[in-house]
Amino acid sequence: MTQKLLYLSQKNVAAVGLPMVEIIDVVEKGFGEMGQKQVEMPPKPGVHPGGGDNFIHAMPAYIPAMNSVGVKWVSGYPDNPKKELPYINGLLILNNPETGLPLAVMDCAWITAMRTAAASAVSAKYLARPESSVMGILACGVQGHTHLEAMNTLFPLKKVYAFDTILEQAKALADYGRDTLGLAVEVVSDPQKAVTGCDIVVTSGPILKKPHETIRSGWVDEGAFVSCVDFDSFFSRNALNQADKWTTDNLAQYTHYRDKVGFFQNCPKVHADLGELVAGLKKGRQNDQERTFAANLGLAMEDMAVAPLIYTLAKEKNIGTWLPL
Amino acid sequence: MTQKLLYLSQKNVAAVGLPMVEIIDVVEKGFGEMGQKQVEMPPKPGVHPGGGDNFIHAMPAYIPAMNSVGVKWVSGYPDNPKKELPYINGLLILNNPETGLPLAVMDCAWITAMRTAAASAVSAKYLARPESSVMGILACGVQGHTHLEAMNTLFPLKKVYAFDTILEQAKALADYGRDTLGLAVEVVSDPQKAVTGCDIVVTSGPILKKPHETIRSGWVDEGAFVSCVDFDSFFSRNALNQADKWTTDNLAQYTHYRDKVGFFQNCPKVHADLGELVAGLKKGRQNDQERTFAANLGLAMEDMAVAPLIYTLAKEKNIGTWLPL
Repeated sequence: MTQKLLYLSQKNVAAVGLPMVEIIDVVEKGFGEMGQKQVEMPPKPGVHPGGGDNFIHAMPAYIPAMNSVGVKWVSGYPDNPKKELPYINGLLILNNPETGLPLAVMDCAWITAMRTAAASAVSAKYLARPESSVMGILACGVQGHTHLEAMNTLFPLKKVYAFDTILEQAKALADYGRDTLGLAVEVVSDPQKAVTGCDIVVTSGPILKKPHETIRSGWVDEGAFVSCVDFDSFFSRNALNQADKWTTDNLAQYTHYRDKVGFFQNCPKVHADLGELVAGLKKGRQNDQERTFAANLGLAMEDMAVAPLIYTLAKEKNIGTWLPL
Repeated sequence: MTQKLLYLSQKNVAAVGLPMVEIIDVVEKGFGEMGQKQVEMPPKPGVHPGGGDNFIHAMPAYIPAMNSVGVKWVSGYPDNPKKELPYINGLLILNNPETGLPLAVMDCAWITAMRTAAASAVSAKYLARPESSVMGILACGVQGHTHLEAMNTLFPLKKVYAFDTILEQAKALADYGRDTLGLAVEVVSDPQKAVTGCDIVVTSGPILKKPHETIRSGWVDEGAFVSCVDFDSFFSRNALNQADKWTTDNLAQYTHYRDKVGFFQNCPKVHADLGELVAGLKKGRQNDQERTFAANLGLAMEDMAVAPLIYTLAKEKNIGTWLPL
């Protein structure tokens, strides 16, 4: 019998229409498995064609409880947008854990955008106040959009402030919030307005080894939760020192990025990783005054938690192209 | 503009018909680049679904001189043959080094079979006597076949001895040698007959941490070259001690397999790796008496040296399926 493989293009993956609420749910389950040390996720090696900040990373993971194994092979080329190409590109291969045979190859841009926001939402579930209703977003690109959707899924958002150095980006996010989510999104030209007064703050700009320190001490309110999608790029050292709980998605990966790669040089001590929070091994928010932070780096586990759902739903909906192995 | 991706199934890759002589040539060039430290090839991480000896490895490499970058995601499941599935399965993703975008996804079984034999042939070019005409093959599966083709490409073979614990395997290799390569292949039931009297010996059985030690001291002739495709699985310690030059494909990987994984515990000191031999940094065979050995482990560089040739030839010949990214 000829073995077959399902190919899902970027459009196919989006057309599958996996809802954010299910992505958040399965990513949370994946973190629970990781906290219990039930995920095999070796360090992600990379190559760097052309030098500079270009990278292509191999991100393998195996989650026995989800019967999921595979690899994401994802590139980031900072100069791509100048060529009208996306910054992030790549493919994900999903395998049959019983035979090792590939089941599916799918574009990974959609999954990467969605699962990153889902991981922030899982952090927020454990670290933000449940009644959080005001959100600030600094840098309003792809991650700004998916984070708005993800936080709106878990929290009773009423008001959103959008800041971007490119005004059109902020306006596009405001249109999306209004038209798609029915949310009042106000574009602000002063970054502090997207921080002070907000219950949930997301910074999702370019990742920089040397932070631009836009956000100053005193801006983040007591009781607020911040998801630093762009690592610590937005924060001054004094602003970071106001964190009562500084967390990450995976301690081993964070430590590697801090000690070997050179990020997070001015950051507080890590209180817990998200696996520990979800598995109940460490405490999340404990009162309404704490300023809590998540600096999640992105994990192969998240991709492999989501990929089987896409694969199954695509088969049900007859989406994609079947190919002979 | 929608970006496109070329998919090549196992049949497509074989149909491209890249000749062994070109594979050997490009693999040798790749080793030259590696010897000059012009290849980026991080350690290959793996996951191990189901435990036992199951593995799926991510093998990324970037070869600037060949404008080639990509990853091979390859599984080995020892129990697959019982399910009438191949032991080795997987896909290779080839990327555009200028943009990071994927160019092609191709089945990797054919490439893996061919480039492994090509690497042995490159080792033989530097370590076997050029007039080598008698070859012995112990274990006659896929690698037995491709090694016969590869050695026949570089050496004036006249006589081949084939040994296998499964007689049908040896007979199949004899048929292949006669029908396809016009070579006299004699099936032997005594393994020593595929070693003593041979100029080139290839052992290509299952890889074992504890060698079965079939080949004893005194069996390998003076002046012979041995390619240990199955590591040291076939050799007694005393037989290995007769090696005048013990080589591998990449010293860093060999050291990892020896010190961290536990293979090669009874093996001689490494004289050189194949990058050093091809780059002229270390000497290959220096006289007609030396017993020379290659224990190559298989490198992502070899895959990424071959893949662009397959991709280019497939486009020229209109082979494969074009898919939207």
